[in-house]
Amino acid sequence: MVKASITGSIIGNLLLILGMAFFFGGLGKDEQQFNTTAAKTSASTLFLATAAIVMPAVFVLTSENPSDAIVETLSIAVSVIMAVSYLASLLFSLHTHKHLYTVDTTECVAKWSVKKSVLVLLASTVTVAIMSEILVGSIEPLAESLGWTEMFIGMIFIAIIGNAAEHVSAITIAIKDRMDLALQIAIGSTTQIAMFVVPVLVFTSYFFENPMNLIFTTFELAAIISSVLMVKSIIEDGKSNWFEGLQLLGTYGIMAVVSFLHP
Amino acid sequence: MVKASITGSIIGNLLLILGMAFFFGGLGKDEQQFNTTAAKTSASTLFLATAAIVMPAVFVLTSENPSDAIVETLSIAVSVIMAVSYLASLLFSLHTHKHLYTVDTTECVAKWSVKKSVLVLLASTVTVAIMSEILVGSIEPLAESLGWTEMFIGMIFIAIIGNAAEHVSAITIAIKDRMDLALQIAIGSTTQIAMFVVPVLVFTSYFFENPMNLIFTTFELAAIISSVLMVKSIIEDGKSNWFEGLQLLGTYGIMAVVSFLHP
Amino acid sequence: MVKASITGSIIGNLLLILGMAFFFGGLGKDEQQFNTTAAKTSASTLFLATAAIVMPAVFVLTSENPSDAIVETLSIAVSVIMAVSYLASLLFSLHTHKHLYTVDTTECVAKWSVKKSVLVLLASTVTVAIMSEILVGSIEPLAESLGWTEMFIGMIFIAIIGNAAEHVSAITIAIKDRMDLALQIAIGSTTQIAMFVVPVLVFTSYFFENPMNLIFTTFELAAIISSVLMVKSIIEDGKSNWFEGLQLLGTYGIMAVVSFLHP
Repeated sequence: MVKASITGSIIGNLLLILGMAFFFGGLGKDEQQFNTTAAKTSASTLFLATAAIVMPAVFVLTSENPSDAIVETLSIAVSVIMAVSYLASLLFSLHTHKHLYTVDTTECVAKWSVKKSVLVLLASTVTVAIMSEILVGSIEPLAESLGWTEMFIGMIFIAIIGNAAEHVSAITIAIKDRMDLALQIAIGSTTQIAMFVVPVLVFTSYFFENPMNLIFTTFELAAIISSVLMVKSIIEDGKSNWFEGLQLLGTYGIMAVVSFLHP
Repeated sequence: MVKASITGSIIGNLLLILGMAFFFGGLGKDEQQFNTTAAKTSASTLFLATAAIVMPAVFVLTSENPSDAIVETLSIAVSVIMAVSYLASLLFSLHTHKHLYTVDTTECVAKWSVKKSVLVLLASTVTVAIMSEILVGSIEPLAESLGWTEMFIGMIFIAIIGNAAEHVSAITIAIKDRMDLALQIAIGSTTQIAMFVVPVLVFTSYFFENPMNLIFTTFELAAIISSVLMVKSIIEDGKSNWFEGLQLLGTYGIMAVVSFLHP
Repeated sequence: MVKASITGSIIGNLLLILGMAFFFGGLGKDEQQFNTTAAKTSASTLFLATAAIVMPAVFVLTSENPSDAIVETLSIAVSVIMAVSYLASLLFSLHTHKHLYTVDTTECVAKWSVKKSVLVLLASTVTVAIMSEILVGSIEPLAESLGWTEMFIGMIFIAIIGNAAEHVSAITIAIKDRMDLALQIAIGSTTQIAMFVVPVLVFTSYFFENPMNLIFTTFELAAIISSVLMVKSIIEDGKSNWFEGLQLLGTYGIMAVVSFLHP
């Protein structure tokens, strides 16, 4: 269920949020432009994350009953590589190459002090987390009584509910034609989930009874690989239009249908 | 057999026709150029079509004996998404972004009235369809007596015979250095098959005894995915040369050899 | 073991050598640039090589016990296509499009005669080959006594030892900011292994008792496909920086960890 939710967050951010941003942002415009270097660096990070998710799964598929200890060692070793790459990506985007990431923020004038901002951020993050937990907890039994499959709940339903705030902001921002920021929301949070949240989950779960491993199912792999290749293909020219948004949404629709029917 | 022919049309258009156009068009020239935006939009459509073909197959591979009813529902739902995307692509290329698709047609002066053109087009389409049917019907027993595998007949032989006209026109046009038109013939007909013919076949077959589903074999998937990635990689820079054509033809040769030997 | 070493050379050149060149070359620089047309042509050749390696494996996975004779015929037929493409790539890079490949060589002034150069080249190649053989022969028992898996020895250990010279030169050259040459060393030797060494091995082994076939394992396929897509994604913009190098090294690290633990 955890890995289904992770997959759902990845494809939700890449296909649904980015698709809606491109679609609604592109309506009535010929094309919208964004910074390709930053977009391409994120895309390579997604490829690294994909390799980190694919290779352990292929390992298990091609071994005969690997022991739990080996799978755990593998998951931790790959997670270390992901975490190091994530730290390096922060060094890259915040220090050595920060000029590539300077989104135009002239509209935003700081009215709050740093201390106030951090406190409000922390408080609202905690509130959102608690709300999501309550929401998910109360909707799950309802969803199951409707006969929804666990895969659909994990991959689609929770991912949509959990990322509702990002949806709204990405679309609003895209309509204002600030595509660099919209891309950072959609792709930035995907790389954050894949390269930071996943390794942290693997590390912390190590101290519990059932450590989480990195072995995704073939279905989840196919969904992640398709999404990454699709998004890579669409963002690499630094332009978007409503039809590209619709293509992302169409791909998301296919994933949703398949996971809804999957027994 | 139907899905093998669809696969054959897709790889035949992408690898054989485009390969011959690039190869013969590029001979003696340094490079040939074409419009990248239109080419890239077609490439994204191919990615969507690939996802629409891959996900249902992964669904079946990872479910334990899904019922026919579920597979049929899945096929129809995915086909609806494909058909909607196809209609949207028409809206995009004929209405909102038609300036990207304006192929230079100064050479072509309309001498026929619209009514006459449509009638001639209809008549010749019907004639070609009947001829193909007769040709295929008469050649199939011959092919089978030669010991050709069903996969080779479907994927390679019928696809070559059925697209003979497109081969000749794409090569002639490429030699005249009108690459945008050559690409439209090769990639345009691929997206048309994948996004329009396939869903129409799924919908109409629904009223017959053995409805066609969208479940392609692993071999067909591998052929389609390889072709789409290869073509994507070659067209995205908006330039072509004879060696790129040869690489497409080499990939096609590999597909032909493998499907010829496949038991 | 032979195919594991080939896989190791491919991923070693693409991920480790190129990764180190981009990483050390990029340190302290904003970005390094290189010729995209040559890089993209190499990338398409890698896609062709990948298709040539993937399709026979899919053939075997989807056939029920294909006979050895069919697998051998398939291997030879695909090898012929690879060898022809390799010859065509020489014609392309040395004759019809040699202007794309003119690396700046003003620093290098020929001091030796052609005859002397060829003799020295031959002598040193033979010496390196003998040395590698001795090295590998003496290290293999040691490696096995350390409990290393055959896959790790073939894919990672031999590949690093065997390409040590290329590592050093690629990094030195990249630090001097001569990226076109560094790319030629890394990607050029990959295409040479995949498109020339592999078919030659298949042809010559045909005269021995156990002819080598082209059937790579699923694990080797996944490693090759991931590496090719990753490198393609990183080189296509004609620019590199230290973080892109690190991403390639991270992907290599994942492959190394997985093959080290693979039973």
